[in-house]
Amino acid sequence: MENATRRIENLAKQIIEELKSNWVSADVNDESEIEIQKAFDPDSLHKYLFPYHKEMRNPLVNDFLSCPLLAQPVFGLSLKEERALTRKQFEQIVVLMRKYNVSVYDFIRDPKKIAAFHQCYRFPNIALSTLFGVHFSLFGATVLFLGTDEQRERYIPLVENLGLIGCFGLTELGHGSNVQHIETIAEYDHSTQEFVLNSPTVTSQKYFIGGAATNATHSVIFAQLKVGETMEGVHAFVVNIRDKTTGQAMPGVRIADCGHKMALNGVDNGRMMFKGARVPRDQLLSRYGGVNKAGIYSSPINPAGKRFAHSIGALVFGRYIISLGCVSFSAVALTTAIRYAFSRKQFSGDEPTKEKQLISYATHQRRLFPHLANTYATHFLNEYVLNLCSEKERKEKEIHIVASGIKAYGSWMCRDSLQEARECCGGQGFLSANLIGPYKSETEIYTTFEGDNALMYQQVSKFLLTEARKNPPQPYQQPNSTQKSQLDSKYLRSFEFIQSAFNSRLNHYTLFVTDSLSDSVASGKSIMNTWNDSGNIIFKLGQYYTEKTLVDKFHAGVVACPDPTQKHAMMLLFQLFAMNNLEKDPWFLRYQFISPEQSEAINQEVTNLCKELVPYSVSLADAFGFDYRHLGPISRDWVSENKY
Amino acid sequence: MENATRRIENLAKQIIEELKSNWVSADVNDESEIEIQKAFDPDSLHKYLFPYHKEMRNPLVNDFLSCPLLAQPVFGLSLKEERALTRKQFEQIVVLMRKYNVSVYDFIRDPKKIAAFHQCYRFPNIALSTLFGVHFSLFGATVLFLGTDEQRERYIPLVENLGLIGCFGLTELGHGSNVQHIETIAEYDHSTQEFVLNSPTVTSQKYFIGGAATNATHSVIFAQLKVGETMEGVHAFVVNIRDKTTGQAMPGVRIADCGHKMALNGVDNGRMMFKGARVPRDQLLSRYGGVNKAGIYSSPINPAGKRFAHSIGALVFGRYIISLGCVSFSAVALTTAIRYAFSRKQFSGDEPTKEKQLISYATHQRRLFPHLANTYATHFLNEYVLNLCSEKERKEKEIHIVASGIKAYGSWMCRDSLQEARECCGGQGFLSANLIGPYKSETEIYTTFEGDNALMYQQVSKFLLTEARKNPPQPYQQPNSTQKSQLDSKYLRSFEFIQSAFNSRLNHYTLFVTDSLSDSVASGKSIMNTWNDSGNIIFKLGQYYTEKTLVDKFHAGVVACPDPTQKHAMMLLFQLFAMNNLEKDPWFLRYQFISPEQSEAINQEVTNLCKELVPYSVSLADAFGFDYRHLGPISRDWVSENKY
Repeated sequence: MENATRRIENLAKQIIEELKSNWVSADVNDESEIEIQKAFDPDSLHKYLFPYHKEMRNPLVNDFLSCPLLAQPVFGLSLKEERALTRKQFEQIVVLMRKYNVSVYDFIRDPKKIAAFHQCYRFPNIALSTLFGVHFSLFGATVLFLGTDEQRERYIPLVENLGLIGCFGLTELGHGSNVQHIETIAEYDHSTQEFVLNSPTVTSQKYFIGGAATNATHSVIFAQLKVGETMEGVHAFVVNIRDKTTGQAMPGVRIADCGHKMALNGVDNGRMMFKGARVPRDQLLSRYGGVNKAGIYSSPINPAGKRFAHSIGALVFGRYIISLGCVSFSAVALTTAIRYAFSRKQFSGDEPTKEKQLISYATHQRRLFPHLANTYATHFLNEYVLNLCSEKERKEKEIHIVASGIKAYGSWMCRDSLQEARECCGGQGFLSANLIGPYKSETEIYTTFEGDNALMYQQVSKFLLTEARKNPPQPYQQPNSTQKSQLDSKYLRSFEFIQSAFNSRLNHYTLFVTDSLSDSVASGKSIMNTWNDSGNIIFKLGQYYTEKTLVDKFHAGVVACPDPTQKHAMMLLFQLFAMNNLEKDPWFLRYQFISPEQSEAINQEVTNLCKELVPYSVSLADAFGFDYRHLGPISRDWVSENKY
Repeated sequence: MENATRRIENLAKQIIEELKSNWVSADVNDESEIEIQKAFDPDSLHKYLFPYHKEMRNPLVNDFLSCPLLAQPVFGLSLKEERALTRKQFEQIVVLMRKYNVSVYDFIRDPKKIAAFHQCYRFPNIALSTLFGVHFSLFGATVLFLGTDEQRERYIPLVENLGLIGCFGLTELGHGSNVQHIETIAEYDHSTQEFVLNSPTVTSQKYFIGGAATNATHSVIFAQLKVGETMEGVHAFVVNIRDKTTGQAMPGVRIADCGHKMALNGVDNGRMMFKGARVPRDQLLSRYGGVNKAGIYSSPINPAGKRFAHSIGALVFGRYIISLGCVSFSAVALTTAIRYAFSRKQFSGDEPTKEKQLISYATHQRRLFPHLANTYATHFLNEYVLNLCSEKERKEKEIHIVASGIKAYGSWMCRDSLQEARECCGGQGFLSANLIGPYKSETEIYTTFEGDNALMYQQVSKFLLTEARKNPPQPYQQPNSTQKSQLDSKYLRSFEFIQSAFNSRLNHYTLFVTDSLSDSVASGKSIMNTWNDSGNIIFKLGQYYTEKTLVDKFHAGVVACPDPTQKHAMMLLFQLFAMNNLEKDPWFLRYQFISPEQSEAINQEVTNLCKELVPYSVSLADAFGFDYRHLGPISRDWVSENKY
């Protein structure tokens, strides 16, 4: 019996291998073809890129892919059908989460397990990850981070066994970015030992709350806490918003549907107003401040303004999770587009039968490969953030800076990568079956959710400027004329040159912004107006810091790789990442870090690096772990799949 | 009776005016507010921007807006429902087309009428414009341009009264860009005086044909014509593909559904294979080549290769129509986002009640206004193309160059403008009701349809390089040191400086590409490989030509404006368009057209211009003619509209 099973398994493996190697159909083959050189084994690089919880990955991926409810792409549903499907899939994800013992407690105990679980996602419906994320990572992690031990024990098991479905009520119609000034009020009524929730204005309604329109039974609600006559700042409450059995809103809660969205319609975004909703005293999440039986508020953190940072500290890991997702979605699109570029041909000299593969065109290489480089860069910085989050003594400030930066960088990277991949696949990229188009629509919200990217970079800058006041960076010095006359590849691609470029830019710009802000204040402008009017340079500073960090972590990740071929291939990507950035940003010429001749040489380096990357490109893309079982038809033998 | 009607009309007008002026709710008002200064009357600028067929515009817009079937946004439908709705709407558009006497013949007789009809579109379902465009502008115009007088008279009335529904079968699975090498074969069978259509390979199936899956009864089919043993090149045939009554595919035609797409699902894209489908001799569109009763092929154009240009010449106007649409869609998004930026507030110094309008932030201005400038630039170049197309003696070569360039520029402009507007509106931009998100998804296909943008710019370059061989441009000379030390606004914003910048860049780059290609060929590379490996610089040359032309036409459009305030506001936009381009493209520093100090000054000019544009921005956006009746809730009083 066991033998028979093994034989079937072997047969299945063989078929899979055959499918893998035969994906280019005979129709599109000829002698001059550039082969998908398997320059190295992508599985081996995959293990290098994702070195933790290895034992769980293959089985989990297989579980995702062998579950038709999750793995089968379904498109073209009505809003109602899409929500219903996503809800069913959501319940299935929770089953898998339990099977692999992934717990809300892992946000503290083992963040890498949470990361690995997300990295193994293999389902085409992105809305599902959002719905699950709201329940598990926003509701669940908020209870974990802000709840007392008793509250954790009360709610977390309910999150994990679907005894409740949670959502996250922070954003209001009037306050999305400036959440410290939300208007919802929770006033303590000592006579009943309850908080009374009220939405005093139209703009104070909780808005765009994922899961609230139909699914959620509970919500974390952020509100201004009032005890007696004292406003104690923003606090989080666990609120039962909907009766689990009847689906009716609870007394004092009004819920409406936000309606249809450009994508992610599997998530039921809702809006909520409170009119005297009563919340028992012990449902104020009280780790950093609560009201005791005597009706007295106390907190270890004072004044009230300071408590806010703790209230939303839990969101920082969410920023990392977004960026992790961005790497996956970008990888799906690029793996598809690069594979398609090897099998798709167009144009020839004179003989129509000798058409050339898209991948052989310099333009096509340059459209795709820089995005692959950016995806790798994001991955390595993600890993750095994950390591920081896994340390016993967490460096909260550094985590906050890097996670904010990578959320902005990663989500824009993903947006641009998917867009380019879509265009590089033409109409095929627009077909839902090839996943690129739907992924693009469903993930572009990452640029603004959990904080608008422009604000993310401004947050990074705020930290840098505070730091710079204490330790001003070295004044910027242009390279000397000998350095600026170096035009050879070896020099331009060297880590010394690259690192110096990104460090110099950051240091120069830090002082540039500091001086510019000081001048403005000295000239009589208010601090608020100075800050707003300087928004563009402050924004850029956050970007420059993030890109400098990407360079450092990307390079460190490459040089530590034990396999020489993989290392070489990733080094080309690293150099492309750097050269592409040096080429595009006028800073380097404006502040004469490079000479005009070097700028032209760098332009040529980008083209050359792209060409050198061709033979490695499929293996590099494959290393993210998305294979023919998950990708769309154009990544495989799309000719045969279009037979009648 | 007439008096009563007039009174009702006046009352309606009054209500409309009130709605217009009251769109900022009391909730979000305070003293420090920047008012939406109606710096000028946007209707008056609208008339300047769209100076033809004025008499038809208001009634047509009103007809669109007063037709609930067209004007009411409907989202969240299943694929089937979405197609059914779009079909019903399609029939309604044809009614309006007839009401306003817009005819297929106007592609030749009065292209401005076609343009005006498209500019007046006011319906939220973009798929509708595509379905109508396929029928009217692709099928209809192809019959007009390629058909004999007799064929025109036979088919055009059927197009106009829906006696048939047409689609356009050019693209094949294997050939989207290189359409000259499509594989479908039409072999003449003299015994029956018919052409026999065959799809010899899987890749030869007609693919992604809008309207083919369920709607169309007829298609223009492009195929390689074979008469006797001679291949005569690509020709177009009118083919009855589906029985109008039963909906069944005709004998020899197999039709399948391309399936769900990331957007535009109101359009039923299909794929078609032919197996001996028989097409009567007189259905070969024969204006430029046909088979006579004796079975002899003749054409006024020889050799066969040359005929191809004529066959797809009709597509050029389609490129202009795309760019025209891009201006409208971008205008919808920007009008919404700019209006929202005036009413939406976020953050303050210390007092939460004194939050600042988004429009007051330098970052927010810089995110939105360059796109408004690009939209204006595209509009003015569109108008230039339209004028060229309306001339009696058409300059076909210039039309081809400029239309190809503006299609690439316009569709990327639209893509980026909608994306930025979406992000600037946060989650609200993602809600379908606000139109930005759906418009973004539905229009981004413009970047690749009717030809991938990268190829569009390469086509432009091909013409330029041929021209340069005959008349090489002046060698590039850097400005002198006095010129490069000029840092004042007046100098940098002057047309002389701007024009010289864009002209110099084009001239320099033309020679740069020419030299680079010659060097490559001289070194022994084949012409095909030289062309492919130089793809990136060839591409850029096409872009530089297009941007130079945008500068010329935008400026000409601004200076001719008779109203000084409008002219001033548009001049700021023009300068922003130029400064933004000068800031972003490293060419200007790399080839030392500007000094590093000028580069920094230009950066500051962009910020300053954005600030100066604030008071004009709403009027400038409104001038495109989209008002509260068409735009989403966030362009109006979104607070009241979110009441319970």
